[in-house]
Amino acid sequence: MNQYKAALVGYGGMGRWHKTGICKTDRILITGAYDINPERMEQARQDGLKTYESYEALLADREIDIVIVATPNNFHLPQSCQAMEAGKFVVCEKPVTMSSDELQEMMDCSKRTGTKFTIHQNRRKDADYLAMRDVVEKGLLGEVFQIESRVTGSRGIPEGWRQYRVAGGGMMLDWGVHLIDQMVMMMSPAKVTDVYCELYNVNYKECDDGFKLIMHFENGPSVMVELGTSHFISAPRWYVCGNRGALIIPNWDCNGKIIRASEHEVRWEEEIIYTKAGPTKTMAPRAKDTIEEIAIDGDKWNSDYDYFYRNLADYLDGNAELTVKPEEAMRVMKIMEAAFESHYTRSVIKCNI
Amino acid sequence: MNQYKAALVGYGGMGRWHKTGICKTDRILITGAYDINPERMEQARQDGLKTYESYEALLADREIDIVIVATPNNFHLPQSCQAMEAGKFVVCEKPVTMSSDELQEMMDCSKRTGTKFTIHQNRRKDADYLAMRDVVEKGLLGEVFQIESRVTGSRGIPEGWRQYRVAGGGMMLDWGVHLIDQMVMMMSPAKVTDVYCELYNVNYKECDDGFKLIMHFENGPSVMVELGTSHFISAPRWYVCGNRGALIIPNWDCNGKIIRASEHEVRWEEEIIYTKAGPTKTMAPRAKDTIEEIAIDGDKWNSDYDYFYRNLADYLDGNAELTVKPEEAMRVMKIMEAAFESHYTRSVIKCNI
Repeated sequence: MNQYKAALVGYGGMGRWHKTGICKTDRILITGAYDINPERMEQARQDGLKTYESYEALLADREIDIVIVATPNNFHLPQSCQAMEAGKFVVCEKPVTMSSDELQEMMDCSKRTGTKFTIHQNRRKDADYLAMRDVVEKGLLGEVFQIESRVTGSRGIPEGWRQYRVAGGGMMLDWGVHLIDQMVMMMSPAKVTDVYCELYNVNYKECDDGFKLIMHFENGPSVMVELGTSHFISAPRWYVCGNRGALIIPNWDCNGKIIRASEHEVRWEEEIIYTKAGPTKTMAPRAKDTIEEIAIDGDKWNSDYDYFYRNLADYLDGNAELTVKPEEAMRVMKIMEAAFESHYTRSVIKCNI
Repeated sequence: MNQYKAALVGYGGMGRWHKTGICKTDRILITGAYDINPERMEQARQDGLKTYESYEALLADREIDIVIVATPNNFHLPQSCQAMEAGKFVVCEKPVTMSSDELQEMMDCSKRTGTKFTIHQNRRKDADYLAMRDVVEKGLLGEVFQIESRVTGSRGIPEGWRQYRVAGGGMMLDWGVHLIDQMVMMMSPAKVTDVYCELYNVNYKECDDGFKLIMHFENGPSVMVELGTSHFISAPRWYVCGNRGALIIPNWDCNGKIIRASEHEVRWEEEIIYTKAGPTKTMAPRAKDTIEEIAIDGDKWNSDYDYFYRNLADYLDGNAELTVKPEEAMRVMKIMEAAFESHYTRSVIKCNI
């Protein structure tokens, strides 16, 4: 097993998180950083990193095998290509680029230079996602027809470049990447056949501060992905319905429950039920002995962030495939583009992504 | 004040509910019934009703001022017209007809005969709906950008004609009428500008056993209306988000809460928050003193079903407008038709309904 050295371009919140939070394997050492902001350069030095006078100086450092691009989104393409031209393997923050055209350009550059890149679409090992997938893939809900994946808070768009369109701001290009990526990976190889989306501009006019997206997978469920930054009450993180049961995981702590049909035959009550909201047969509760409740214990599930760099070391050693491939990022990017088109044309975008 | 006499055609679950549950004013007396099913005729007699040998015999009874049509949906048009031709005022169960063309025919018949009709779209006084409207109309949430109105259970479609297309079965023509009607009445006079819908066939192939509909009102919020009969965990009955706060009413008991921004300035935390699902600025919780929580006390709200017949008596006396006008039912019918079209063409239907 070899040891590799990496340097960061961009040492803001996410850049620093690569150093302090994600890259916990000693097979990859993050040793250097470059940022145009002197305060962040000072922070990098305090964190024990070598700092460079310019991005070119960083790229000229022969010690560096890997460049991690953690700058605002509009810099991802030029900086990643520049690094590949310099022979460095690239880890690019998500969204990999501003568009699928840009991503194609990056892939062309990779082909031309013979250097590779991956994208930090790192929420495939989130505890809540793993807990949900486990239930679905064990078949505990029967055939799943609806998935709701929702991340909602009320803090607005973080200050800085994420509020500006020129920098690729907005929530679709931010959380949208993760939430779509999770669904694409779960449903793969099924493709997305149509996309409906509405973007919200509740408190920010320039960039979407939330969205509601519905996509269908071939022979698969209807998937609603929602992101909100103006939601004073949060929607459940996961709500999944199958023909034999349903799952809810309310929030990040991953505690949740399943309610599913037990093996007893379902009994129909003859009578109309009189609720406070009037009479209904359809909405009458089930008899208790026809269902079973199973708790989802959040303590059993933990996120695995450093997997990303362990995999990268394995890949560079020649012992593994990359966990995030450019082709996968391309699918997510094209789904997001379909979502933007759906919103701006108020239509359903039929596709095969 | 006059006293009016009414007779029911159709004495199934809903027909009997008119007699026993809704019509509680002695200004309208339900005195008779006709049903093709002998057992239901026996039930009607036990309930103190005069029964007729045929629908024609009922219509020939000069004592009867009002005919209440509570048969399967495909009979609504011919039976309502037959009653109007006989000079009877008609109360028709919802959905008023199978289509907007049929409804137009009914309205033409009303014009031709000079007799009027109304539709029992009676969930405008439901406790949960009134509680939600009160909060929104008092402005407690600021400008509302999203409303979710969801009724979800796991009991499937009730047995009988509701499972058959020829009879106008399925959940859109059942609960869909109420849930759309509530939104139309709340947003009026704003019109619906587009409709997206997907129908579900989880356990029934012939008729939809659930649907998810998103509509936009001009200069208004995005409204998601959902009905599910295969949901082992119920979604909240109401979830409403405005730019200053959000409301949730989990179920029929109408207890719920509002969380809204207090007058304090919202403080931004500089730091990234590390949740179990990883780092996020956007989803960090708000500082407690920047929000206030207000309980919605379900005991304060009660449904008012008999309002429908009190209003009808007032109308027949010449002292009130009808609470449910055919033109309002037409809007709901056209929105449902747009919803069906949206589903079957997988497209967004732009409209002005």
